[in-house]
Amino acid sequence: VGSPKPGLDEDEMVERIRGALGGGIGSLGLRDDAASVEVPDGGSLVVSVDSVVEGVHVDLSVCSPADVGWKALMGALSDLAAMGARPVGALVALCAPRSGDGLALGVMEGVAEAAAVAGCPVVGGDVSQSRELMVSVTVMGTVDGGQPVARSGARAGDVVLVTGPCGGSAAALRELRSAGLGVAGPLGAAYRRPVARLAAGVEARLGGGSAMIDVSDGLALDLHRLADASGVGFRLTTIPVAEGATFEEAVGGGEDYELVMAVAERDLDGLSGRFSRAGLAAPVRLGVITADVGERLLGGVELGRHGWQHQIG
Amino acid sequence: VGSPKPGLDEDEMVERIRGALGGGIGSLGLRDDAASVEVPDGGSLVVSVDSVVEGVHVDLSVCSPADVGWKALMGALSDLAAMGARPVGALVALCAPRSGDGLALGVMEGVAEAAAVAGCPVVGGDVSQSRELMVSVTVMGTVDGGQPVARSGARAGDVVLVTGPCGGSAAALRELRSAGLGVAGPLGAAYRRPVARLAAGVEARLGGGSAMIDVSDGLALDLHRLADASGVGFRLTTIPVAEGATFEEAVGGGEDYELVMAVAERDLDGLSGRFSRAGLAAPVRLGVITADVGERLLGGVELGRHGWQHQIG
Repeated sequence: VGSPKPGLDEDEMVERIRGALGGGIGSLGLRDDAASVEVPDGGSLVVSVDSVVEGVHVDLSVCSPADVGWKALMGALSDLAAMGARPVGALVALCAPRSGDGLALGVMEGVAEAAAVAGCPVVGGDVSQSRELMVSVTVMGTVDGGQPVARSGARAGDVVLVTGPCGGSAAALRELRSAGLGVAGPLGAAYRRPVARLAAGVEARLGGGSAMIDVSDGLALDLHRLADASGVGFRLTTIPVAEGATFEEAVGGGEDYELVMAVAERDLDGLSGRFSRAGLAAPVRLGVITADVGERLLGGVELGRHGWQHQIG
Repeated sequence: VGSPKPGLDEDEMVERIRGALGGGIGSLGLRDDAASVEVPDGGSLVVSVDSVVEGVHVDLSVCSPADVGWKALMGALSDLAAMGARPVGALVALCAPRSGDGLALGVMEGVAEAAAVAGCPVVGGDVSQSRELMVSVTVMGTVDGGQPVARSGARAGDVVLVTGPCGGSAAALRELRSAGLGVAGPLGAAYRRPVARLAAGVEARLGGGSAMIDVSDGLALDLHRLADASGVGFRLTTIPVAEGATFEEAVGGGEDYELVMAVAERDLDGLSGRFSRAGLAAPVRLGVITADVGERLLGGVELGRHGWQHQIG
């Protein structure tokens, strides 16, 4: 692997880790939201893992231990949503300090609440002592015999859609930080209780979505990742901004968990019809996919890779 | 769930977490080494998650980043071994500080080495920034249409066996701490490069093992857990001590990853024959399972719950 430079960003680190692992990587694994695993005696599972670290991903001064557990499970489930999979089970690795105030149990209560809302049983877990709070959640899902929707399937001419306005989580965090714990209403909830778009993901898959990703690190960054994986460009005309959010928060704020998808023009009506019949809000059209991989435009202007990446190395 | 007392031990915490999760727990989950999950379009998987935290489970002054990765994967795989499952894939959640010296990559190289030895592809992963190093590994395995071996199946009259002498990892850690990094030979390896007894686990399952657990926290503690789950007692006559280890290290030292199993007397010859034909060392007879759940004897003397439990809460 060689000597890494200090402070690789997350995407660079993932590429280096792929190198370290060599050929032992499952289909779609480490280059998509989730991997697909064949089960020896039949069937397949879509699997993904995601971590929440206190002080990095979450701030216990603006959310409760139960919020941390909720966010950890929903963040992992959002990766299944982005593949068009529905969850069949989760495993939770909880590392927590000996706080004496029920921190670990509080986190697990939030996990349980999110699991009930998402219809995803927690089938296994592990608790360890640590100095900082960390929750890693592995989720398993199924596409019921279909094919998962990869990041890499977008083609020139496809329409780009998003399931809803973005920036709500970042705006809520900003409000929470200025107001302190206990902010009621939709803003606090967008940060503390995000919901994975599982139903939308399944409808997008069944409706012919060609590529999909969830907005976990920022709409712009995640859209660039989809375009990178597909070897395409994009021309966007608009970005829908969540109520209370700034344009910058909509472009670069993470943890919205809206789904961004590409779909061939001919499949657009069918997909929209599916969303409508499922009682889901109509997806918002952002623009189109183009053949030039270097073209990444919003309103005719270059769109930066706005979003959040871990610095590791 | 109510207000927990400070500093629950790991087993108490798991029971409380079971309460928080209510009925949403898969078969065998949270009360055994691994859980069994039905795959919607056929088959089933045995799944487990395990974490390694620097400064708690491992000490970077006596092992390398690659050792940490190796230990994390093998520790998780040992839970599959204890069910009699063979691995089909792993997911790795890595939380690491921005150290600039390749810590995260080093860990993943060790994961890759262990994955190659165990024949377990790494199918997914996640890297996050954190202040302390933490590696959580989820493993998936199969019993190829058979039944996993639970902790709870031991019956009075069964023979208790262990796959090999214990205390080697604890002895190696003691030697490493006194000698510093770089100790060669079997002692260093027992701590830094333990190997999950996957082949022994499969043979024990096929040979009719009635209950099984891996020695991760201490032979005595893990044997008590097996007896608790089965509602039985035990009368041991001997404990095999690894070369270089003390008797105390053999009884209470963790991370040996030997397998402790119960087997009906009538199945003992068949099981031993399987081990022999598979080229595995003959398992060592520790004693017998008894009907009295309160009887927990070694050489006629009460055996304490020696071993290591996290303090969390």
